[in-house]
Amino acid sequence: MATIHPVILCGGSGTRLWPLSRRSYPKQFVPLIGLESLFQASVHRLSGAGFAPPVVVTNADFRFIVTEQLAAIGQQAAAVLIEPSARNTAPAVLAAALWLNQRDPEGLMLVAPSDHVIPDADAFRAAVRAALPRAVAGDLVTFGIAPDRAETGYGYLELETTEAASATEPQALRRFIEKPDASRATQMLADGHYLWNAGIFLFSVKAVLAAYRALAPHVFDAVAAAVAGATTDLDFTRLAAGPWAKSPDISIDYAIMEKAGHLAVVPYRGAWSDLGGWDAVWREAGPDARGVVTTGNARAMDCDDTLLRAESPDQQLVGLGLQGLVVVAMPDAVLVADKSRAQEVKQVVANLKATGAKQAEAFPRDHRPWGWFEQLVMGDRFQVKRIVVYPGAALSLQSHVHRSEHWIVVAGTAEV
Amino acid sequence: MATIHPVILCGGSGTRLWPLSRRSYPKQFVPLIGLESLFQASVHRLSGAGFAPPVVVTNADFRFIVTEQLAAIGQQAAAVLIEPSARNTAPAVLAAALWLNQRDPEGLMLVAPSDHVIPDADAFRAAVRAALPRAVAGDLVTFGIAPDRAETGYGYLELETTEAASATEPQALRRFIEKPDASRATQMLADGHYLWNAGIFLFSVKAVLAAYRALAPHVFDAVAAAVAGATTDLDFTRLAAGPWAKSPDISIDYAIMEKAGHLAVVPYRGAWSDLGGWDAVWREAGPDARGVVTTGNARAMDCDDTLLRAESPDQQLVGLGLQGLVVVAMPDAVLVADKSRAQEVKQVVANLKATGAKQAEAFPRDHRPWGWFEQLVMGDRFQVKRIVVYPGAALSLQSHVHRSEHWIVVAGTAEV
Repeated sequence: MATIHPVILCGGSGTRLWPLSRRSYPKQFVPLIGLESLFQASVHRLSGAGFAPPVVVTNADFRFIVTEQLAAIGQQAAAVLIEPSARNTAPAVLAAALWLNQRDPEGLMLVAPSDHVIPDADAFRAAVRAALPRAVAGDLVTFGIAPDRAETGYGYLELETTEAASATEPQALRRFIEKPDASRATQMLADGHYLWNAGIFLFSVKAVLAAYRALAPHVFDAVAAAVAGATTDLDFTRLAAGPWAKSPDISIDYAIMEKAGHLAVVPYRGAWSDLGGWDAVWREAGPDARGVVTTGNARAMDCDDTLLRAESPDQQLVGLGLQGLVVVAMPDAVLVADKSRAQEVKQVVANLKATGAKQAEAFPRDHRPWGWFEQLVMGDRFQVKRIVVYPGAALSLQSHVHRSEHWIVVAGTAEV
Repeated sequence: MATIHPVILCGGSGTRLWPLSRRSYPKQFVPLIGLESLFQASVHRLSGAGFAPPVVVTNADFRFIVTEQLAAIGQQAAAVLIEPSARNTAPAVLAAALWLNQRDPEGLMLVAPSDHVIPDADAFRAAVRAALPRAVAGDLVTFGIAPDRAETGYGYLELETTEAASATEPQALRRFIEKPDASRATQMLADGHYLWNAGIFLFSVKAVLAAYRALAPHVFDAVAAAVAGATTDLDFTRLAAGPWAKSPDISIDYAIMEKAGHLAVVPYRGAWSDLGGWDAVWREAGPDARGVVTTGNARAMDCDDTLLRAESPDQQLVGLGLQGLVVVAMPDAVLVADKSRAQEVKQVVANLKATGAKQAEAFPRDHRPWGWFEQLVMGDRFQVKRIVVYPGAALSLQSHVHRSEHWIVVAGTAEV
């Protein structure tokens, strides 16, 4: 049986879940639902019998968050590939395929975003097993989510028949459909032979390389050169920036899937969400009978249809008489928004960034190779930081002429 | 001309403006409107020609806040009288009258709460001047606010005629009216010869002592003994706890004003508010054309009829698409409430207190005689505090056996 190599894409930095998701620490690394981060849950979901250690594709800013979060759940990556710049999913998937081709050319790749919620990992792995024969046979398999609402935020997969959509075996795909408007989405939901395109794929290394060569030669040439010129830095594989920059900035859907033959779809009827906004987080978190979700030190008094999140144990959040809101409280930033306008949080962040508010992108906790630090107080001519250094790690060497530093070790032993 | 002694009552600790107002640092000490605290603005309003330094009546917990806030605006109290326990306004006013009787028995007292907003100090002082002849003549003068809405949260003063209510000279008072229901309030607003009872009074020391002797002898005996037995502690006059505890717990309205003869009312048509809830703060802060008020690092995106307050310079608050809300963000506590239910914030605090949330009563900044401190971070076996010691002041002497303390002086010079 061919080995399945999970390829976890986690270079993105969505802003629609601000203030919890920020450019410097985006949503895939945050425990949005449950105790694990979405990235950790994605790695767990694609581990166990039949799965090799994952190939993680990310960017330089997140590389230490990736290794820290893997270590925290006792997992190790087969490789952490560093994208020198953001080029969307087509180059990222290809880089992983080329890396794997040097190690297991007969292997299969399960490509998955790192920021989706799929609560039933067993059911999802069963869908992957159902897809195996077709992937081994050379098809490009995509997983289609059975829709439960007329969602306009996703692309759709059109199957031949309603029966096909309710099967569990791989089905032929008629075509990909772009994000629809509301009336088209309603019609597709009613028709019953459309599934959501979740951006999760299973294919053999061989088949996908052949597809890139045939359908996206510009991407292939650039990424092949970037992989050939890659350098090793600690546990990271840094793709060569020069050739990488020459690749088109394009998704795997546009570059490959929408053009390829040999396509198949495995319908998945379990719960799934890409947590594309606070409304989705509210939905996935399991609202109570009044539609209320509270997390952390948040309490709702006579609220309906509302998400109240208190992210810090030192902060108390109270909602009184609220209807249809999302409230996310952090010590340095608070969002209060009409839940039906959750998609506009993106504009909130753009607006904050335009006016220079540091909270637009910077997370209070700054992750570094050796650990992390956070500013506790900034005063006139002084500041206090909390610094955590991982066991065995060392801060970068630096000196300051106009600064006097005092260090107090509160736990562990430090060597200066 | 008799001297006017301002008597500022600031022993209260309202919870309806939580989280900004808490038991340990209530609203009168907070800069709710403008840069000064309500207490500081009250002292300023009753200063200048004709006014003696104020007599401040407060409780032991607030005594250092009082002296700190007076020092910050370059003012000094004639006396700070410390109530040993909360006994409402009748004993507090009497204690001030007895204290003044020993120093200026011919003087007048202007009794005012410390937590009201009266933006036009000149107009208010003109009303006080208009009241002077009647107070000198021995009347008990109360100030009546011309109502601009059918408010159910205040008591009312009934005058003889509509003409009386629109005068600026002292008028005869027909009677006091308890807080009305909504239909009665609407009727009184339409009738036009009713004013709000603001709890602000002008009378001579002599006249008010005579009234207490005649109308509230139990209060008189207890408070007279408490003043006779008072002790001096630094700049504070501590009333004797034993006799004080024997005084009935009663307001000056019930104990004296509603029973006394020789009453007069001076109508006041300027703006006034007791900031009795976040809805009142919103109203007094001057909402823009869409009804929005923002303070600090708060921004409103497409909001209407909403108050957004960010109390810390380190915290960013964003409201998106909100209608009719109040949002108050502090680093340790956030309130989001339907503005029309602002009065229920009291229950929010009771609920927090019942479940042991420290934010119910404790303010992050803890005021002490020598300065203040706040906790920056609390960890397993360590904590970091920021401590501010006033010039010339000294921390209380203490030692800890199981604690190791490290002090870093970031500004000024410290002597150990």
